[in-house]
Amino acid sequence: MKFVVIGADAAGMSAASRFKRRNPGAEVVVLEKTTDVSYSACGMPYKIAEEEGDLESLIVRKAPVFREKQGIDLRLEHLVTGIDRKGKKVFGTGPGGNFFEESYDTLLIATGGRPAQPELKGLDLPGVVYLKSLDDARLILRVLEERRVKKAAIIGMGYIALEMTEAFLARGIEVALVKKRPHLLPWMHRDLAAVVQEALTRHKVEIHDGVNLEEIREAGADRLEVAGPGFSLTAEMVLVAAGLVPNAELASEAGLALGAGGAIAVDDHFRTSDLFIYAAGDCAEAPHVVTGGKTWVPLALVANRGGWIVADNAGGGDVSFPGIAGTGVFKVLDLEVARSGLTLEEALKAGFDPVETVIKTRSKAHGQKNAGAIHVCLVGDRKSRRLLGAQMVGPEGVAHRINAVAVALAAKMGVHEFSECDLSYAPPFGPVWDPLLTAANQLLKDLE
Amino acid sequence: MKFVVIGADAAGMSAASRFKRRNPGAEVVVLEKTTDVSYSACGMPYKIAEEEGDLESLIVRKAPVFREKQGIDLRLEHLVTGIDRKGKKVFGTGPGGNFFEESYDTLLIATGGRPAQPELKGLDLPGVVYLKSLDDARLILRVLEERRVKKAAIIGMGYIALEMTEAFLARGIEVALVKKRPHLLPWMHRDLAAVVQEALTRHKVEIHDGVNLEEIREAGADRLEVAGPGFSLTAEMVLVAAGLVPNAELASEAGLALGAGGAIAVDDHFRTSDLFIYAAGDCAEAPHVVTGGKTWVPLALVANRGGWIVADNAGGGDVSFPGIAGTGVFKVLDLEVARSGLTLEEALKAGFDPVETVIKTRSKAHGQKNAGAIHVCLVGDRKSRRLLGAQMVGPEGVAHRINAVAVALAAKMGVHEFSECDLSYAPPFGPVWDPLLTAANQLLKDLE
Repeated sequence: MKFVVIGADAAGMSAASRFKRRNPGAEVVVLEKTTDVSYSACGMPYKIAEEEGDLESLIVRKAPVFREKQGIDLRLEHLVTGIDRKGKKVFGTGPGGNFFEESYDTLLIATGGRPAQPELKGLDLPGVVYLKSLDDARLILRVLEERRVKKAAIIGMGYIALEMTEAFLARGIEVALVKKRPHLLPWMHRDLAAVVQEALTRHKVEIHDGVNLEEIREAGADRLEVAGPGFSLTAEMVLVAAGLVPNAELASEAGLALGAGGAIAVDDHFRTSDLFIYAAGDCAEAPHVVTGGKTWVPLALVANRGGWIVADNAGGGDVSFPGIAGTGVFKVLDLEVARSGLTLEEALKAGFDPVETVIKTRSKAHGQKNAGAIHVCLVGDRKSRRLLGAQMVGPEGVAHRINAVAVALAAKMGVHEFSECDLSYAPPFGPVWDPLLTAANQLLKDLE
Repeated sequence: MKFVVIGADAAGMSAASRFKRRNPGAEVVVLEKTTDVSYSACGMPYKIAEEEGDLESLIVRKAPVFREKQGIDLRLEHLVTGIDRKGKKVFGTGPGGNFFEESYDTLLIATGGRPAQPELKGLDLPGVVYLKSLDDARLILRVLEERRVKKAAIIGMGYIALEMTEAFLARGIEVALVKKRPHLLPWMHRDLAAVVQEALTRHKVEIHDGVNLEEIREAGADRLEVAGPGFSLTAEMVLVAAGLVPNAELASEAGLALGAGGAIAVDDHFRTSDLFIYAAGDCAEAPHVVTGGKTWVPLALVANRGGWIVADNAGGGDVSFPGIAGTGVFKVLDLEVARSGLTLEEALKAGFDPVETVIKTRSKAHGQKNAGAIHVCLVGDRKSRRLLGAQMVGPEGVAHRINAVAVALAAKMGVHEFSECDLSYAPPFGPVWDPLLTAANQLLKDLE
């Protein structure tokens, strides 16, 4: 039995490790195009924020450990360029440009994703950077130093853009956020996004959304201009953080079906349209617990979990995945921002008859000092009375509170049932009625 | 239609307010023995902690507001001493010791609880205090000043004892915790309780459990000795925080049945054994979502929720309460402590075949600074594979994380189902696999 994995990041290494642990006699080969494996990619903005910037501390486990301790045949600098499904083998270019090929009994494609490239001239200029791989982060640190960056332009206004905004501000670098389409955090309820916008503005971050953007061009030594008709902005560095794209070409060229978001289509076993090939992580779609359909959410836990399920099924198991809820959380400045499940718009698209409720409550009990405001948006279905999703923003107590919603979505709870949950209360941590319960009680009225 | 409520605290005023809002034409009378209504009792330790100690800021709504704005006939200093169930009236002593009686169509008993009195001589000495009512808190502040308290002995080691420990330490007062029975936080898994014990010891709190305690006696001017054979301790103040007792005597004397913990027995509508009389709050039992039986958990949200359900049913509705999960949380020094559902011992008593798992993980992702250790104890049922309960302790991320468990318990989730929930992840807030998921994955193995 030979299990071959393409890609040594979260999904790939989770699958390889679990598979080898459960099938010690099997041969496990992992083919990785870079030299970095098993690092905390999500931690990169926080290391870039630090003056010393110790990116290497993000590496959880180095390649020799996988080889020597776990018995996984991990091969670095192996770029897979094709899959021969009939012959059940993969081939590509190894170190030094040498051709290699490798047969498999079962294959996992865990090729991840890459930064989306907006339609913009000049993306290849020096000083234009991305943040997806450890090498991207290393380049950012180098550019920050070499160009003595005092101002950074970030193209995009999603969570990577905002985490990097905080990182740059921590280093004393000014930040301008720019994008063509309107809205900071476009998926978010406008009232909640306004809270984030206000915090950014308070920290002197420029926000330019809906601008006429055409190109990035050089503007003197170590300076770039981000410009279009009627718009211009100069900075020493431009970070493009305009979303991700799944690395699905290898699968597509091998004739495998694509699905949600252009990611590799999989069933609830993470099996592709080829019975011997699985796909997981940022390159693959996943079932959604609320819609019952497929979704593409390139996040770490989804990748790790997918890897486990692939390992179990590749090893002869029959493990299906109930799905993800699309839970996401990030920190920006003094705010925690979180979501789980569907937004109103997503719920409409999925065929629900959604209603949304927004409330604002105190983050601590009456009489407690240093309380802030927590904003909650809950979405429910008028017909079934099911809870469909939530968004929250506030100075504290948001990141973990959203988990109550994630569990409720997994349980397909009604709004009423959720409103009756026995959530925790103590004055330093919230009001007697948890903000989620207050929102649920309001949503119950709005659903009538 | 006349709705009479005995007790103007959380359950009583929630019920009265909601009932009047939904039945504006009805007469609503609330009889309260003290002069304090609608205050955040749980906030008292935090006000006592402050040098200025502004207890009055805990009052959420004053009596005139209920009278004038809400049309509730709120009568202070009205002590109800008896219920004439046949005649459907209550009677007692009003201001100035005058007799009063009041007829009702529907009655709510919301008489709350009172501090338990341990078997100990000298509980009536000056300098011995309790903490349940606002008057108790006022007395504590007065005693702190008058006796120039430098050291306080606290009898009891539950959450009130620990919240007050933190309050006293904040004022520079030394604290000794004392009790006859063994164990700090006796319900808690010993590994988790040890984390709390270690934090207390680090803050120089004396812990004397399992000691031979017989009396409190005077030991010179403004000093008390807490003593028994082979044990002695002196302090300027003794706080008795040895648990609560439900104020169920009024109900019991009227012939109503008592239930869990000696509290007033109620059905899932919060109705007592008399169809015209409800009971809710600290004086009444409540259904438990995990056991399906009754339990007595004197906590604020249970009281507020019970009040609402009583209001709905008293107003002609038919609202049953699925139950509480026994979720509780408190802060002590630099730790958050939380629980929901059953402990191993409670699960055994309830007839389950329980297994418990304890894990320790980082509070933040790999590579993040200032991470602490989160300890999680999960309890599951071997037979049904259901999740039964959780306990957590850690420097952060515990108070709100427990809500994921509270929701899972309400949904009667299996451990496997819970382990597949899409919990949030970002490096500042936890590891990729949330501590609850890591614990659930471990419990799954231990259940096999």
